Amino acid sequence: MEYFYVPNLNAKKGEVVIAGQEARHIAKVLRHKPGDEILGTNGRGDEFKMVIKNIQPERVLVNVFEKREGQREPQHKLTLAPAVLKGNKLSLVVEAVTELGVSEIAPFLSARVVGKMGAVKGQRLRAVAISGMKSALRTILPEIKPVVGIEGLIKKFSDFDQVVVAYEEERSKSLEQVLDTKVKSVLLIIGPEGGFTKEEAGWMREAGAVLFILGPRRLRAETAAVAATALCLSLLGDLK
Amino acid sequence: MEYFYVPNLNAKKGEVVIAGQEARHIAKVLRHKPGDEILGTNGRGDEFKMVIKNIQPERVLVNVFEKREGQREPQHKLTLAPAVLKGNKLSLVVEAVTELGVSEIAPFLSARVVGKMGAVKGQRLRAVAISGMKSALRTILPEIKPVVGIEGLIKKFSDFDQVVVAYEEERSKSLEQVLDTKVKSVLLIIGPEGGFTKEEAGWMREAGAVLFILGPRRLRAETAAVAATALCLSLLGDLK
Repeated sequence: MEYFYVPNLNAKKGEVVIAGQEARHIAKVLRHKPGDEILGTNGRGDEFKMVIKNIQPERVLVNVFEKREGQREPQHKLTLAPAVLKGNKLSLVVEAVTELGVSEIAPFLSARVVGKMGAVKGQRLRAVAISGMKSALRTILPEIKPVVGIEGLIKKFSDFDQVVVAYEEERSKSLEQVLDTKVKSVLLIIGPEGGFTKEEAGWMREAGAVLFILGPRRLRAETAAVAATALCLSLLGDLK
Repeated sequence: MEYFYVPNLNAKKGEVVIAGQEARHIAKVLRHKPGDEILGTNGRGDEFKMVIKNIQPERVLVNVFEKREGQREPQHKLTLAPAVLKGNKLSLVVEAVTELGVSEIAPFLSARVVGKMGAVKGQRLRAVAISGMKSALRTILPEIKPVVGIEGLIKKFSDFDQVVVAYEEERSKSLEQVLDTKVKSVLLIIGPEGGFTKEEAGWMREAGAVLFILGPRRLRAETAAVAATALCLSLLGDLK
């Protein structure tokens, strides 16, 4: 099954033009013909059934004949805040956690971050999120938030019912023990390769975050991000 | 903290020669000096403390003065059986699940597998497992088993207390609902991109496997492998 991302789809049924890359994909890669039925999402929660009326290389005219709410979205809002990582590691994380079901990705910088994040990386992450949404047949496109410092990250805490932080020096509790499964929204924070400083961990704890460990083995940041996202969604009942 | 893989370390304390790549890493990359204390594992469960006595570019002489059992290994034996995947996708899986704590990786071929697996890929996966073991500070090197067909995979079922298979058409149970957390050993099977055929799923079920779903979203095989491994280890109590 193929899913197309058409942000200009809205409540109105009827004729819609699909342009750009998705049009090329429909016309050239998948070689669809007029009369074919296709599925799409606007990335804002809705799923659409469309029939192709006319195909040009960069422009596909469709008739939208059915709209419904997406059936595969989690019941909870999970925002993943990963530290900025080197190279394409953040892309691997964004793709995997988008498939798993996060609502938002909020990259941040902290003392031990060695990666960089400019406009190009932000654009690339957005493209990766679109690809992850389509391949997972999701109807919500996770937003890639602008990168912030740790103070900016802490300011977001009040937007969530619970904030949990993977902290490798925290020797006491597992995610299962600390996650409140009755909440509606969770901010999950994963630090950089070198972890958080004691000071940073202290600031987050003072601001209301709960720290947890992902077991006794040392995990790379990208493994920790994907594993913790899967555990969170499972504990919240969103991987059933 | 750095961890070295020295397969020739055994029960005997005293002088040991570290050769090859690990020696180069100690001498040239980390620029250790005689008198430095280093940590190592033989990949068979033991951790060693050593002091460097003499350094040559390809040969480091150490004196082993302490041996103890590794403290970071899971209590359960989890074998991941991933379908062979295209390109370097299996490497990404092997690295992540080694860090998380699997005991063994048993790649297999089934009807919808499109990737290939030759001797070179097997060697590369072994190198990735070594790297994952070291970075996670583990003391057991997960074995990369020779690739088998689905019949060969089913023959292994009797070696495990429970066999669980991620199957995307299985609309009923989650891993949490089907995993028996009282078992000692689990075989976790993740199919190829296109999933298993109905016939293959039937064969595995008949041979005693339990099928489960990883939620309503469609996951790439590598995301499913890492997520399901994390969930299994967490449910077994091995991510505390």
